[in-house]
Amino acid sequence: MSTIAFIGLGIMGSPMAQHLARAGHEVVGFNRTPEKAKPLIDAGGRAADSVAEAVRGADVVALMLPDSPDVTEVLTGDDGVLAHAAPGTLVIDFSTIRPDTAAELATNAAEQGLRMIDAPVSGGQAGAENAALSIMVGGADEDVDQARPLLDIVGKTVVHVGPSGAGQTVKAANQLIVAGNIALLAEALVFLDAHGADLPAAVEVLGGGLAGSAVLNQKAPKMLDGEFAPGFRIDLHHKDLGIVTAAAREAGVTTPVGALVAQLVAATRAAGDGGLDHSALYRTIARLSGREETS
Amino acid sequence: MSTIAFIGLGIMGSPMAQHLARAGHEVVGFNRTPEKAKPLIDAGGRAADSVAEAVRGADVVALMLPDSPDVTEVLTGDDGVLAHAAPGTLVIDFSTIRPDTAAELATNAAEQGLRMIDAPVSGGQAGAENAALSIMVGGADEDVDQARPLLDIVGKTVVHVGPSGAGQTVKAANQLIVAGNIALLAEALVFLDAHGADLPAAVEVLGGGLAGSAVLNQKAPKMLDGEFAPGFRIDLHHKDLGIVTAAAREAGVTTPVGALVAQLVAATRAAGDGGLDHSALYRTIARLSGREETS
Amino acid sequence: MSTIAFIGLGIMGSPMAQHLARAGHEVVGFNRTPEKAKPLIDAGGRAADSVAEAVRGADVVALMLPDSPDVTEVLTGDDGVLAHAAPGTLVIDFSTIRPDTAAELATNAAEQGLRMIDAPVSGGQAGAENAALSIMVGGADEDVDQARPLLDIVGKTVVHVGPSGAGQTVKAANQLIVAGNIALLAEALVFLDAHGADLPAAVEVLGGGLAGSAVLNQKAPKMLDGEFAPGFRIDLHHKDLGIVTAAAREAGVTTPVGALVAQLVAATRAAGDGGLDHSALYRTIARLSGREETS
Amino acid sequence: MSTIAFIGLGIMGSPMAQHLARAGHEVVGFNRTPEKAKPLIDAGGRAADSVAEAVRGADVVALMLPDSPDVTEVLTGDDGVLAHAAPGTLVIDFSTIRPDTAAELATNAAEQGLRMIDAPVSGGQAGAENAALSIMVGGADEDVDQARPLLDIVGKTVVHVGPSGAGQTVKAANQLIVAGNIALLAEALVFLDAHGADLPAAVEVLGGGLAGSAVLNQKAPKMLDGEFAPGFRIDLHHKDLGIVTAAAREAGVTTPVGALVAQLVAATRAAGDGGLDHSALYRTIARLSGREETS
Repeated sequence: MSTIAFIGLGIMGSPMAQHLARAGHEVVGFNRTPEKAKPLIDAGGRAADSVAEAVRGADVVALMLPDSPDVTEVLTGDDGVLAHAAPGTLVIDFSTIRPDTAAELATNAAEQGLRMIDAPVSGGQAGAENAALSIMVGGADEDVDQARPLLDIVGKTVVHVGPSGAGQTVKAANQLIVAGNIALLAEALVFLDAHGADLPAAVEVLGGGLAGSAVLNQKAPKMLDGEFAPGFRIDLHHKDLGIVTAAAREAGVTTPVGALVAQLVAATRAAGDGGLDHSALYRTIARLSGREETS
Repeated sequence: MSTIAFIGLGIMGSPMAQHLARAGHEVVGFNRTPEKAKPLIDAGGRAADSVAEAVRGADVVALMLPDSPDVTEVLTGDDGVLAHAAPGTLVIDFSTIRPDTAAELATNAAEQGLRMIDAPVSGGQAGAENAALSIMVGGADEDVDQARPLLDIVGKTVVHVGPSGAGQTVKAANQLIVAGNIALLAEALVFLDAHGADLPAAVEVLGGGLAGSAVLNQKAPKMLDGEFAPGFRIDLHHKDLGIVTAAAREAGVTTPVGALVAQLVAATRAAGDGGLDHSALYRTIARLSGREETS
Repeated sequence: MSTIAFIGLGIMGSPMAQHLARAGHEVVGFNRTPEKAKPLIDAGGRAADSVAEAVRGADVVALMLPDSPDVTEVLTGDDGVLAHAAPGTLVIDFSTIRPDTAAELATNAAEQGLRMIDAPVSGGQAGAENAALSIMVGGADEDVDQARPLLDIVGKTVVHVGPSGAGQTVKAANQLIVAGNIALLAEALVFLDAHGADLPAAVEVLGGGLAGSAVLNQKAPKMLDGEFAPGFRIDLHHKDLGIVTAAAREAGVTTPVGALVAQLVAATRAAGDGGLDHSALYRTIARLSGREETS
Repeated sequence: MSTIAFIGLGIMGSPMAQHLARAGHEVVGFNRTPEKAKPLIDAGGRAADSVAEAVRGADVVALMLPDSPDVTEVLTGDDGVLAHAAPGTLVIDFSTIRPDTAAELATNAAEQGLRMIDAPVSGGQAGAENAALSIMVGGADEDVDQARPLLDIVGKTVVHVGPSGAGQTVKAANQLIVAGNIALLAEALVFLDAHGADLPAAVEVLGGGLAGSAVLNQKAPKMLDGEFAPGFRIDLHHKDLGIVTAAAREAGVTTPVGALVAQLVAATRAAGDGGLDHSALYRTIARLSGREETS
């Protein structure tokens, strides 16, 4: 059994920390808003008052934070993980951040005698609650091997995809595909609606062929119902596409479709829909076609 | 049992006609190149020397032709179906053509006392050979009901999506989504390759989450192997996206992502890859990033 | 002096016909709405009650019509120009139509013993009224040479750009560049406005460098004032970009930026702004950025 | 007369510094490669061995450096301008950098008792050599007023466009428009070439109407001749479009056409053409259409 400091107990982090606690590990959670630790305590964990306190005595530190600057601050700040964790501690970063930041932080951690892997997840709130996440893992073989039993507790598909940063790279690719598939589905449905097709029937037959996808299965019903409660918010997908754009530029690759999709996500946000599910891209496409959403 | 004239015995039409013949129907095939009728004869069908001869005595006429002008010619030409088929004949057009052409031709057919439905298919050569096609059906209820037993012989997912032309509209939407999903997958793989990620591992973990799709399952292996034998050719997808573009314009809808993807398909064709599988979009994306395809 | 039948006396055709009449030519005008011929009569011309009547006795027939089908109908219809004009008549088509249609019609005309050139114009209502149009001329050398004195009456820059259809091709290229330059200007101004820059000052300095253009000079003031009375309507530019799209597809060329701009023009039309000046693309870009237009 | 430290004596900075020296100012230049200072010395200036030495005694410090990190380092580094310049010194930054960086650095300068304006230029090497630059100036009124006599020595169109950072914002907008206008011109020429139009004639007539622009005048000849020696390099325009992308994202605005154009510039660079003039975008568009460049 491990002693795990879990930093970041939000919508995703809280159920993940609870799963680890219920599996018998000693989990010490920390969140800026302390009341968020309550469900973890109910699940057998403990709450700490600071990162430093959480990290003391831990052999694993797990992070689930919103963005690159948050992870950098929690790790490298004066009161952060690197300053307080014992040598040899394994840091598992579940956050979605820039690949280059992930690689740099792993180097920083190594300089302090710590080990760090990046392990961003896909599957959303439901995946976290049902311990059914897909986890894209970047890091050294031995560190990933050590982390794997813990990753298997919170995830269903856990794949080691390369060295430090590679997990973030694959997550970026995931976000590129997902946003694009959503945009294309939205265009197809607006197109079909304008032509007066039977939309549920169309979705059924599209799903049976080469157009079938997880996005079609999960997002078409939301678009047809005009029901865009998150789920995964446009604001976060916008952030992630910023990572994709930067990482593509850095690698010298061209992603024309991804770049256009990023603009449509930005437009969705600019229209005031940043707090809706990313399937709300439909609303932008419908507006561009002079149509209210289907209802 | 029906007497079926089957016009167009190419890669798709030939196995479909054979399935109908083996199911006990009397199938009379016609193809411009007569030797293409051989497999149908082996399956118990017959060959005719002209459309007129094939259509004589048929109660169902099935068409599987390359493009809108071909269907228009075979139907409305002097030696065509409308001039020679008996009143009451049911025409099933499996071809992928323009929705407006499909609707017009159905009106022409009705004026001659014939009935016509559009029934474009998805699933490719394998789907045709395995009788596992998805079929998007447009037409009047009673005509679709009559056709359904025949459609069920060649298809697995058969859905009535609206009036005449609606099948073609849904097929257009299908081609929009498929081309787009291929382009996004290509961008993601080029992005990952440039970052040095483990591509097979990345494909595995992407397939387990919201980025999963039929396109990812069927086309990622081709892209990773650099193996682009068709399958469904770029040239045909280019033709289909011309239909999408025209139909979107006609309906007054905006499909920005689809329009860009159509350009990338056109670029793939312009590069001399029109005869390759549509997954060869990967080659265009790789070239745009200054990279040879993965090998 | 020539006897000129002038078919199409709209916003553009009317002042052009008047210029020809004032220059001493015998101009017989025809318009579906007869009262449109009044200014031409005031300028010394005459009005005919039909195309056939206008064409009788003419040695030149000028056309200024909205779209390809109109030109085809007026030329090839039962009561049209080809049926009634004397052999040897020179047809000058000022309309903006498809290049392939222009080339076909020239062939049709030749088969009837007539000669035809395409001479689409740029410069708008003001250009027509001030006889300052740019004219892109396609046709045989001797026909263009014969037409040139007439073209010089209505235009300022008259250039022979190739054989029949070439004038339309260059006009299509013109419309591609103009729409794109408008879209880019709109993006730049929205970008600057969001950053709080002094917009008139910015327009001044942009105009002095490599970003300077006729579009910037003529359209930036409209965008800054939120004043979008036409000018050249979005609806017409949308039609013209349909020509560009079709002609690019036919030639096997890729115009990714043009394709995206065509989508933005379509979106402007879908938003109900089809009757505004094409500078109203600004409104679409502003909406995509969640901003009301500058006022 | 002022004593001016001029940091950065490259293709642009060197002729600008010479103009200032010839106008009678005492100019002390510094460049990492010292031999670059030779032309300035010939023009009556002096060379310093370090930023600190150049800055000592100066009442104006001018910067012309490649990118944001360079400017930050030269200003805020231990041996930098802020550490060594006398209180009250006016810093004029001619470099093209991020608007937010420009604003931050101006704040940093103010905290040290210095004043700073951003004054990026447009017009290229020829503009610098001919003292005909367009200069987009951001900063406080009194600082811009003080700088104006110096700016007028090197520029022809000098416009104060807003507070600190606004000059950079307008320069970003400039680069957005220019890259886009180049891409559109390239698409138009490839389109015309594929249709067999007379290209020089087409360029002439396009230039006379609403499609006319500085880009058409200056870049069409290069594209027609296949002559892409810089001028302004693709690599630098790529850098600048990175600034545009970041600044648009930060301001929450959507620039779909600009985003696509940035991808085409990135593709040009990826194809190995980064060292060519930005008109080499033509080569990318030609390749996407399966065509070699016109020759």
